[in-house]
Amino acid sequence: MRIGVIGAGSLGALFGGYLWENGEDVYLYDVWEEHVDAINDEGLYIERLGAEDMRVHPPATTDPEEIGPVDVAFVFVKSNDTRTAMEGASAMYDEETTLVTLQNGLTNYEVIQEFTADDRVLGGTTLIGSNMKGPAHVFQDGLEGKTKLGGEDDEAADRVVEALRSAGFEDTHRVDDPIPHIWHKQITSVGVKPIAGLTGLMIGPISTYEPTQEVLRALIEEAVTVARAKGIEVISDDPVGDTIEHCRDNPEVMSSMLEDVTKERKTEIEYINGAIVEYGEEEGIETPYNRAVTALIQGKEHSYLDQ
Amino acid sequence: MRIGVIGAGSLGALFGGYLWENGEDVYLYDVWEEHVDAINDEGLYIERLGAEDMRVHPPATTDPEEIGPVDVAFVFVKSNDTRTAMEGASAMYDEETTLVTLQNGLTNYEVIQEFTADDRVLGGTTLIGSNMKGPAHVFQDGLEGKTKLGGEDDEAADRVVEALRSAGFEDTHRVDDPIPHIWHKQITSVGVKPIAGLTGLMIGPISTYEPTQEVLRALIEEAVTVARAKGIEVISDDPVGDTIEHCRDNPEVMSSMLEDVTKERKTEIEYINGAIVEYGEEEGIETPYNRAVTALIQGKEHSYLDQ
Repeated sequence: MRIGVIGAGSLGALFGGYLWENGEDVYLYDVWEEHVDAINDEGLYIERLGAEDMRVHPPATTDPEEIGPVDVAFVFVKSNDTRTAMEGASAMYDEETTLVTLQNGLTNYEVIQEFTADDRVLGGTTLIGSNMKGPAHVFQDGLEGKTKLGGEDDEAADRVVEALRSAGFEDTHRVDDPIPHIWHKQITSVGVKPIAGLTGLMIGPISTYEPTQEVLRALIEEAVTVARAKGIEVISDDPVGDTIEHCRDNPEVMSSMLEDVTKERKTEIEYINGAIVEYGEEEGIETPYNRAVTALIQGKEHSYLDQ
Repeated sequence: MRIGVIGAGSLGALFGGYLWENGEDVYLYDVWEEHVDAINDEGLYIERLGAEDMRVHPPATTDPEEIGPVDVAFVFVKSNDTRTAMEGASAMYDEETTLVTLQNGLTNYEVIQEFTADDRVLGGTTLIGSNMKGPAHVFQDGLEGKTKLGGEDDEAADRVVEALRSAGFEDTHRVDDPIPHIWHKQITSVGVKPIAGLTGLMIGPISTYEPTQEVLRALIEEAVTVARAKGIEVISDDPVGDTIEHCRDNPEVMSSMLEDVTKERKTEIEYINGAIVEYGEEEGIETPYNRAVTALIQGKEHSYLDQ
């Protein structure tokens, strides 16, 4: 199977590396030249927690024309870059290509559907954790993370699930409708990430300190109301309780949004809380808490990006 | 007239210094020992913008018992300290004392009334600007700032107004009801300070950048709704427009709340936006924006004060 990766950052490189190692015909595309050159020169180094490190050699390029249309293209860019990446990588997909998104953010599945027929797109979530240590160097935090994906084309979904399982991602499953699963995973982000970015708190104190716990609760309750109005099944019986429990179990974790604002990078706020605001507007639902935190994080970005 | 100052920080020392220089029997009380000792040793140095500097010698103490009951006591502590200061300085006032507050914050006038008969308290606002440069060293930013004060006892108010005018604060006026004036001055704070503290923006960009301008607008509109429900006259026809104009006229000003969080100090959030939330609850009015920013600033304080 010809497999392309659009955005070979930590997760893209990891998935591509495992699939290549398992004999698939994998091509990595990324705009980061130093990373691409290092992969081609020395291979991709995957440092693994609890397993032997590995070095794999999938070809990488900064030019999607060199790859051409693939059977399956995984989109693994940050939500802010999804639209631009789909435009830039158009040479990698045609009407035969299955596009797969396991990205964080509530809108990627819909955005990617704008670029092809809806039934060509599979969405989902993965709990596999990884981060970039440097060019061509990924650190992988275990392999146990569950991956779920699906869409309108069950056969295509089954093929992708099978390819991932064979490559080592054994806890991968097809779901009938990915949307509730995408929302389920993002509900915690909606409640926690903007509070982290604005207060500087780790996720433990966010969930236990009464004032921030109240904001967390309000953010998630607005998101659940919007989801229900959109006809999206809410998987958890107690999304607020689940989120608080997750934070208490991992008290010293720094949210990625706090890391983003600390490093003065653009955040994914528009695809997390901003999406709740937009969907709320479409459904005629007020979302003052999500609106406030979205604007405040945008203001924070404005203070370091635009001045 | 025996005049006491409870909290001889930048404004307290300035008002006390001018009144002493004009022949009043002034006593400064503050908990900052180094400042008190320096005033007693070398006098209070008032550095003035656009006028000759002055050095004045009002007595200062850290022990309110040494002062005893005065005719007029000005309360000039931060809102967070009002209650503690009133308790600690009880030796300085009795049933004959007029207590005066020109502090920022929506609740000080009410809090001080808990400590004496309501008609013994005068409230108001001042636009005079000053800051501490160090122990016994105040920097004064002009004398043009208008001061308004009043309460139930018009005669007492007239006496205090006259004393301040004679001492050099010529633009001082008695008002019938100080509460609308206190709210009028604080409306800008409600809209600007928490956004500054959370985003790091100067007041100009807060007012011109669309996302933060929307939050500013929502914060002030909630405050105006609460004020009207409480029966408080809203002095401005366009409080949002006035605030935006003020920010545009002073674009590079750093809000004191941003300074507070940058220096990891406790802010006055509970007496500004927190007061809107509490008064809103009393009136059965929802204030989600003020609630969100109050909790987020409290969360930010929690990240550096409590851990």
